[in-house]
Amino acid sequence: MLLRWPWQTMPQNSPYTFEICAESPAAIAASAAFADRIELCGALDVGGVTPDIGMMEFAASLGVETHVLIRTRSGDFTMSSDDITVAIHSIRTARELGLKGIVIGAERNGALDRKAMDAMIRAADGLDVTLHRVVDVVDDPEAAVDIAVDLGATRILTSGGTRSAEQGIEGLNRLHAKAAGRIEIMAGSGVNSANLPLLMENTPITAFHASCSQQTPLGTRYAEVGLGQTKREFDPLEAEKIASILRAKLPEPAGQ
Amino acid sequence: MLLRWPWQTMPQNSPYTFEICAESPAAIAASAAFADRIELCGALDVGGVTPDIGMMEFAASLGVETHVLIRTRSGDFTMSSDDITVAIHSIRTARELGLKGIVIGAERNGALDRKAMDAMIRAADGLDVTLHRVVDVVDDPEAAVDIAVDLGATRILTSGGTRSAEQGIEGLNRLHAKAAGRIEIMAGSGVNSANLPLLMENTPITAFHASCSQQTPLGTRYAEVGLGQTKREFDPLEAEKIASILRAKLPEPAGQ
Repeated sequence: MLLRWPWQTMPQNSPYTFEICAESPAAIAASAAFADRIELCGALDVGGVTPDIGMMEFAASLGVETHVLIRTRSGDFTMSSDDITVAIHSIRTARELGLKGIVIGAERNGALDRKAMDAMIRAADGLDVTLHRVVDVVDDPEAAVDIAVDLGATRILTSGGTRSAEQGIEGLNRLHAKAAGRIEIMAGSGVNSANLPLLMENTPITAFHASCSQQTPLGTRYAEVGLGQTKREFDPLEAEKIASILRAKLPEPAGQ
Repeated sequence: MLLRWPWQTMPQNSPYTFEICAESPAAIAASAAFADRIELCGALDVGGVTPDIGMMEFAASLGVETHVLIRTRSGDFTMSSDDITVAIHSIRTARELGLKGIVIGAERNGALDRKAMDAMIRAADGLDVTLHRVVDVVDDPEAAVDIAVDLGATRILTSGGTRSAEQGIEGLNRLHAKAAGRIEIMAGSGVNSANLPLLMENTPITAFHASCSQQTPLGTRYAEVGLGQTKREFDPLEAEKIASILRAKLPEPAGQ
């Protein structure tokens, strides 16, 4: 099923960017209709891991701008040499499939792991690079902004050092000031249509990242055998709401 | 890092099979030393999803017998046509990389979804097929055994219809009787060195599946920003214990 409603994507002159974090084939297909791009990942409930090749091929076949989360496993963001080897394989595949960017991050002892990130960026060979929420766990997020600029990353996904972008408004403003136009600051974690106006009013951020999903109950049999209580479902109405809020802030056309 | 201690794998004449369910590069590398094969998957904390291509390539490079979990997303085991498309891409990649088998399962309204499984098995084109714990959520697990035989699957991974194999001894015995040698019944979910002797004493099961992992705390910063409390770490000592228990049940060599 190919859903394409191009009139619902951000207008060319919109100052806002809307990224949907998609973890299922259904979300990928529907995201193409609403977002400027998707962050493709697997298993959002553990914070996301590298999506499988089937998901990458599916996104490539829809033609939606796709940036691929590269995270070999859940847990921390500390990468062993084996983790880096695995990450590089996946980055090369994303590149071969014609996807647009990678979303990466590595830390060691509370600081960005430059060596790991350099190796991944070399493998990306010109793909767009987003630094993911690793900046929210390092000791000095402002120093991390300088390193991200130095690495050539295009943007940083952050919740301003707290659980959610809504709680992290102060941190988001601080990181945006530190970035000083050298790199984009994208707000993510718990962004939804209810708190988006607050974020737009209280920060200069123009890039937003949301999963537009909700948890729905699984059958009781799944719970009985320990296979989960809920499933995450993409909510196209929520995606449309977010897109509408961002579109409503368009500057008035000149001469009117 | 390549760990290979071939003397620790099951002896040729062992009646027992030990499968490690591996979700990280560290687990893949260490599993090769202890197990007969690995089930390769991502994000065990959500019950496993299809691992990314980097993980598949890494397992292929180690030469360990690898069966790949094919599950496009967490939640239920109901597959849309997009899910099947994505699954088929990943199955073809596993085959091209020379991996040995796939681990699949699909249900719809409480029964196995034969159409989805047929499509995946066709794409597998001769790879070994394991039916995963979907049998623990369908209404009639014994009917599912007949369907699995009919589909040409080699084995069924099950906890006997309960939360863990330890609680499911009665169900495991029932499924083993229903299988009647036509298909292997492998016990999985919560199998560890502490409950393995109980399972070996109280069931005729000879194939065991375990993750040999434990949760260790993440730094407080991860919890503060909502990026998780624990990480799953492979425990080589646990894997060695399980291998030792299974080896200890070897029949005495003839003439002694």
